[in-house]
Amino acid sequence: MNCLLAFDKFKGALPAAEAVRIAEAAMKDALPSAVVEQAPLTDGGEGFATILATALGGELYQVEVPGPRFKPVTGNFALVEASVIPAAALERLQLSGSAGSGKIAFVEMASASGYESLSEDERDPWQTSTIGTGELMKAAVAAGAKAIVLGIGGSATNDCGAGALEALGVLYYDRELQSVSNITPATFKLVNTLGSTSHLLDTFPPVRIGCDVTNPLLGETGATRVFGPQKGLQAEDFDRLERQMDKMGRRILGLFGKSPETWEKHLSEPGSGAAGGIGFALRHALPDSRFVEGFPLVAELLGLAEKSKAADLVITGEGRLDESSLGGKGPVGLLQMLERNKRVLFLTGSAEMKTIDQLQNEFPNLKVIPISDPDWPLEEALRRTPESLRTKLLEALKDD
Amino acid sequence: MNCLLAFDKFKGALPAAEAVRIAEAAMKDALPSAVVEQAPLTDGGEGFATILATALGGELYQVEVPGPRFKPVTGNFALVEASVIPAAALERLQLSGSAGSGKIAFVEMASASGYESLSEDERDPWQTSTIGTGELMKAAVAAGAKAIVLGIGGSATNDCGAGALEALGVLYYDRELQSVSNITPATFKLVNTLGSTSHLLDTFPPVRIGCDVTNPLLGETGATRVFGPQKGLQAEDFDRLERQMDKMGRRILGLFGKSPETWEKHLSEPGSGAAGGIGFALRHALPDSRFVEGFPLVAELLGLAEKSKAADLVITGEGRLDESSLGGKGPVGLLQMLERNKRVLFLTGSAEMKTIDQLQNEFPNLKVIPISDPDWPLEEALRRTPESLRTKLLEALKDD
Repeated sequence: MNCLLAFDKFKGALPAAEAVRIAEAAMKDALPSAVVEQAPLTDGGEGFATILATALGGELYQVEVPGPRFKPVTGNFALVEASVIPAAALERLQLSGSAGSGKIAFVEMASASGYESLSEDERDPWQTSTIGTGELMKAAVAAGAKAIVLGIGGSATNDCGAGALEALGVLYYDRELQSVSNITPATFKLVNTLGSTSHLLDTFPPVRIGCDVTNPLLGETGATRVFGPQKGLQAEDFDRLERQMDKMGRRILGLFGKSPETWEKHLSEPGSGAAGGIGFALRHALPDSRFVEGFPLVAELLGLAEKSKAADLVITGEGRLDESSLGGKGPVGLLQMLERNKRVLFLTGSAEMKTIDQLQNEFPNLKVIPISDPDWPLEEALRRTPESLRTKLLEALKDD
Repeated sequence: MNCLLAFDKFKGALPAAEAVRIAEAAMKDALPSAVVEQAPLTDGGEGFATILATALGGELYQVEVPGPRFKPVTGNFALVEASVIPAAALERLQLSGSAGSGKIAFVEMASASGYESLSEDERDPWQTSTIGTGELMKAAVAAGAKAIVLGIGGSATNDCGAGALEALGVLYYDRELQSVSNITPATFKLVNTLGSTSHLLDTFPPVRIGCDVTNPLLGETGATRVFGPQKGLQAEDFDRLERQMDKMGRRILGLFGKSPETWEKHLSEPGSGAAGGIGFALRHALPDSRFVEGFPLVAELLGLAEKSKAADLVITGEGRLDESSLGGKGPVGLLQMLERNKRVLFLTGSAEMKTIDQLQNEFPNLKVIPISDPDWPLEEALRRTPESLRTKLLEALKDD
């Protein structure tokens, strides 16, 4: 029997690669003759660089950069030879010239500017910066990257990319022409003009921003209102932060020579609201940068189509399965790539009944298996995830 | 009669162009039939951009930038078509490719980071920054300059060029990875690492740093000890500031990939001590930058050789004539270009007897004319310079 182990992370409990390792050990005990293929999944957030470094045989770089609240963190990127990247993925990246043949960096924003390094009470979009992501991008270029693929999941930031631009040479001046460093939305109001970058960014290598959402920068479905709360923003601050984002967004468009009549269009471009606007900023600051759909790219990089086709059984899972899982990425994205009657085990920390029903209706041989006792407090469920995953998987394999 | 009016500035009293205008009016009154040629001189300091814009028919740009103590000042640069630049000057600049045929900017450091904008008690090398010069260079590139010639006279700074590099995208991080902006020697001690600039400066156009001194960055003849005092540095601070300069100099060399065994050589390169080290910083930060001898370049740009050859009488002058005037630039530099027996009037605010004798021995038809009464207090002498210049010149022309 061929079996594909393709877990996403169990957020707050287990990285994807760790879930795959636990499942593999369980398989070895339960079905020692099975041929097992591994494919930890990534949504562009935590694990993006390490998973791709492993999957593609690239080199993992770990670099100290300023974290989301400036305290040093270890930023990750993988450097991978373009020649080993699957052709479909390379085509999706639309890299021309030398970028298509040299080394490509997979830069993990979550490692530099993610919320995992912050305690609950440190999470505050007024105080967080993407400066570390900018530093990490420069480190990737310094290490020889001819192009950058930026994974932007799991960010703690809603800074319109201003911090990343600071790392890339944008100066924020106040009325007295003092420059304001360590820029965050809390200090946007001090900014009066932006220093010219003229040619400074002219040779920045191509950047592809992996993105699975279509939110605009501003408004009801924009970065602040939709993603702000999970980053620690209070609802009563929506308007105030939104005004600052609006102003900074326009300043950035002005700095990079976009004429004012195009600003509304740029501010509402799909994806510009992802990761607090970093994609928006990079799109306009860099000579060759664009959004690419995240999950299809990851699927191609990991060879998910080939691997799942060869599998008699697919075992997948993630921390929580609910409506938000249906967006076409992660385990559900994988499901949608499979033949409809493929046998699938879907292990999940917790799940919404409605979503389970919906998926099991659509995929006749799918079995969704919640691994935690619903009576456990969250903290206990998270702590016991490794053990529960193994136990429930062994049970399921025995029943099967 | 052909007459060349080629004054340098009377420092603190009269810009060079103004001295030339006063002399021209006096000539018109005294010798209305004389054919007058004008050539205000510049030593790369105050007036550099305006004088060259006028002499070469270029366009003068005036841009608000942070001054030496960050208070906004008006920075000047001239944009000049390479095609109108005398061939000898163009050759001296060693510009290749498109830089030799596009527009060339003459950027005046003194306007952005000069001591003229500071009151006596604001002059303090611990507190002054070259950030405005960096901004002015970026503005020149943004305006279309394919190369920059930087005049570095008259600076108020001894910051190792750190401020200019800040404007060009270098970040200074403290131990906590907070970036320290508005960097000056007073905050050097906070700096722990410099942010990578990787490719950021790769396409910066060629920069030529006009320089007439050969001082190294550090040591007895270095920037701090030789030029610090005239910028407001106290002698008891020499060692302390020197240590900071030494550390920053090495950080900059390290940032731009110079191997440690070459550091001593770079730190003692002739000219690296000019203008508080800005040339040193730019030399190592930019892909194509070098020092060029300042006065010979200015002489070629102004066509001094041709103009003085055609003149029966050369009228020149500067604020003070003393031993430091003999360095081969300004009026004495002009003298040294002339046939030995050319008739020359040299008007000067004040003069050292020994230097007068030395020059008059060397040039038989040179007449040095101090214009101020030695009994006047300095303030009065400065204030009365325009009037004294006219009066003394009229007298000299009458005697002649």
